[in-house]
Amino acid sequence: MTSRTMKLIAFMQAQNCSNYVGSWRSPASVPDFLTPAYYQRIARTLEDACFDMAFFDDRLAMPDIYGGSADLAVEHGIRTVKMDPTIVLTAMAAVTTHLGLGATASTTYFEPFDVARRFMTLDQMTGGRIAWNIVTSLNSAEANNFGKAAHLDHDRRYDRADEFVQIVRDFWTAWDPDALVIDKQAGRFADPAKVHRTTYHGDFFDVDGTFTVPQSPQGHPVLLQAGQSGRGLAFAGRWAEVVFTAFSNIEKGAQTSAAIREAVAAAGRDPEKVAVTPAVGVIVAETEELAKAKEKIIRGHARQEDGLVLLCETLNVDFSGRPVDKPFADEELAAMSWHGLRDRVIATSGTPNPSVADFVTFSGRGTIDEGRVFRGTPSQVADQMQEWFDTCCDGFVLSASTLPGSYEDFARLVVPELQRRDLVKTEYAGTTLRENLGLDKPSRPAATATGVTGP
Amino acid sequence: MTSRTMKLIAFMQAQNCSNYVGSWRSPASVPDFLTPAYYQRIARTLEDACFDMAFFDDRLAMPDIYGGSADLAVEHGIRTVKMDPTIVLTAMAAVTTHLGLGATASTTYFEPFDVARRFMTLDQMTGGRIAWNIVTSLNSAEANNFGKAAHLDHDRRYDRADEFVQIVRDFWTAWDPDALVIDKQAGRFADPAKVHRTTYHGDFFDVDGTFTVPQSPQGHPVLLQAGQSGRGLAFAGRWAEVVFTAFSNIEKGAQTSAAIREAVAAAGRDPEKVAVTPAVGVIVAETEELAKAKEKIIRGHARQEDGLVLLCETLNVDFSGRPVDKPFADEELAAMSWHGLRDRVIATSGTPNPSVADFVTFSGRGTIDEGRVFRGTPSQVADQMQEWFDTCCDGFVLSASTLPGSYEDFARLVVPELQRRDLVKTEYAGTTLRENLGLDKPSRPAATATGVTGP
Repeated sequence: MTSRTMKLIAFMQAQNCSNYVGSWRSPASVPDFLTPAYYQRIARTLEDACFDMAFFDDRLAMPDIYGGSADLAVEHGIRTVKMDPTIVLTAMAAVTTHLGLGATASTTYFEPFDVARRFMTLDQMTGGRIAWNIVTSLNSAEANNFGKAAHLDHDRRYDRADEFVQIVRDFWTAWDPDALVIDKQAGRFADPAKVHRTTYHGDFFDVDGTFTVPQSPQGHPVLLQAGQSGRGLAFAGRWAEVVFTAFSNIEKGAQTSAAIREAVAAAGRDPEKVAVTPAVGVIVAETEELAKAKEKIIRGHARQEDGLVLLCETLNVDFSGRPVDKPFADEELAAMSWHGLRDRVIATSGTPNPSVADFVTFSGRGTIDEGRVFRGTPSQVADQMQEWFDTCCDGFVLSASTLPGSYEDFARLVVPELQRRDLVKTEYAGTTLRENLGLDKPSRPAATATGVTGP
Repeated sequence: MTSRTMKLIAFMQAQNCSNYVGSWRSPASVPDFLTPAYYQRIARTLEDACFDMAFFDDRLAMPDIYGGSADLAVEHGIRTVKMDPTIVLTAMAAVTTHLGLGATASTTYFEPFDVARRFMTLDQMTGGRIAWNIVTSLNSAEANNFGKAAHLDHDRRYDRADEFVQIVRDFWTAWDPDALVIDKQAGRFADPAKVHRTTYHGDFFDVDGTFTVPQSPQGHPVLLQAGQSGRGLAFAGRWAEVVFTAFSNIEKGAQTSAAIREAVAAAGRDPEKVAVTPAVGVIVAETEELAKAKEKIIRGHARQEDGLVLLCETLNVDFSGRPVDKPFADEELAAMSWHGLRDRVIATSGTPNPSVADFVTFSGRGTIDEGRVFRGTPSQVADQMQEWFDTCCDGFVLSASTLPGSYEDFARLVVPELQRRDLVKTEYAGTTLRENLGLDKPSRPAATATGVTGP
């Protein structure tokens, strides 16, 4: 068995649909998404197949930018329901013992102490199986739910996020790993010399406090992040331990992967210790013909509204009423919220000023073509994954087109083939997520220039 | 069987100790408080005994007011660890099917959308078994963890809390109970006419947004609150469905209970629909002699530092260096954070200007004398509970002096006696917390003067 195996991560939503909106309309989809059972049957499937982790996407509002109303989203189930992912993942934790579990939390709308405590509590309650997917949030619908008139602009969001994550990391390492004593007779609970204050004074935060949760069996949660563009890439370079990304093809993947590793090195970290994991979809069946038939059915579940509503949501721009062929001016493009998606459309459309039609066509948003799809028989899918794994990535974030079917198909058809090729492990290396991902246990950082890390 | 039965609520902490700090030093206490097992064995005991609910206290920092340092709290385990209760309760949910579960969340340091979504997600994931214990938080240690220089004063905190809860309640009723359609073939997910925007413009919050979680099987979580003094009592009158309180004796209990029901009536609500539940401790054994011996052991676990550190934490005043007999001046008393505790010490000490020594003696903080303790044989304890239940309350919040022992003793010795007297139910009335507490399913409120509840 080779020492290098693929990281397998399931891309989950605490929602009524997978990240492919049409999934809820599939006859094979299970509609009990408001109950633990829905998440638990997926969790069992993933753990049986030695997945490293399932992580939950999130957004803090319904999509209501298109046409200034959430009615279309409600009517057609376009990411309408969004439950708190830190709660939903506990349902999966309850029926598994090794599967890692990640949740998204926003550095723009939450507070560092709350996020640090919530995730460290999760990490304790799961014996060290947690990851935090760091996002800066995208649109004014979220701002409105949090009583803010407007969303912070892209680069300011990342400035805030840098301070936020530093404070969280300082809280997480406030207790030395050996701080607990628990000597009942002497009445000595913990060693005060090994429990540190967290003090940070920055542009966005002033914190001078005590953190109330000791370190978990893996030290602290793994940091997962998806920054791709400019300021976001620098942020990922500084913090991410697992980078969630998207490649349109293998060449693009090699470039992006190199850029990520450069950003990590530029931040003074070891680029080999960061896992690059692009999102892919898989449509697999016993025969090519059957896979094609499956794909046709899946494609049939998409509706045109899905893409429009989701594009407006993530770009924070209302497309309604705009002529579909009118190119966006430079200043309009600059104001769009998700730079990664905008830049991908500019690159793939070949025009510096794409129109609504270009965004719909070249983003693939709302369809299964948004990310790369590997299709065919188990061995054909395994070939494609192996080629990428050998060239441009450390594993995959698997998105689903029906639930729980996509994960069941992948686990039962593709994973055994990948295991036969020694590309996927057949048992977990340990009980914590860091052990399974091959990541080091973190240590307490030294005092930094911007933040004072207390004694 | 009479129709009126006692509400039984367990007073839990997501901590290293029960609300009696000395509990962790008991030889019988179990030290695995950082794992789900600790909470799950208690949950099973409570559900076997038909408890209505377990709810978790919380505070957002270690106690570090006394002497300006958390060292004593760390050294002696004085409420040192505080995990996120909304996460910890999910461990109890995973092994139970009927037990209600509550968590504290602060209206001063959190945001309405986040609290509304977190608790409604919990309510969905538990099939409608959740309560929210509304607190306004107490001290500057918490403010410092959230980057605020000072804690809001008592009455302003409640003004903010009023707006906060109104917004949460509006979010919780944003989806009509019959809004979901889930017609895969027609592609119709929900009825836009039955999913409402939440719009609120007040002094503390401006919200205009979409709520992303449908109503739970019980409508929305139960509101639990402990306001006792002036502004806090008015707040409880407006919102609380279960009032968590403390009575020093049966006469005081009757007065307080009447004041609570008056406050409820003054807010235009039905006073009979609100449950008044004082905190009590129980020390029970097969014989009086054994109960006395147990009590002696339990008392031996308290240390003087416990009371001083916890008094300073909740009053937000540093007692260190102050002569213990020096009376607090009126303005010093006015600045204390927890009015309920201050007023109780003034009343029971008989002096309008108590000293540090008076606070230690008459609050009983850090000892089992902080709340009323019922002691003796099962039948003696049942007699005392029955007398209170017939006179001044609807049930009890049971605090523990050892964990899990206090709940095991109560469940095995007292509950069968109370059930024999038809004072405690022998099976759950339904699967939701509202059904078990006899509370109505809430309906969407009409538009109010201060907040506009959208169409």
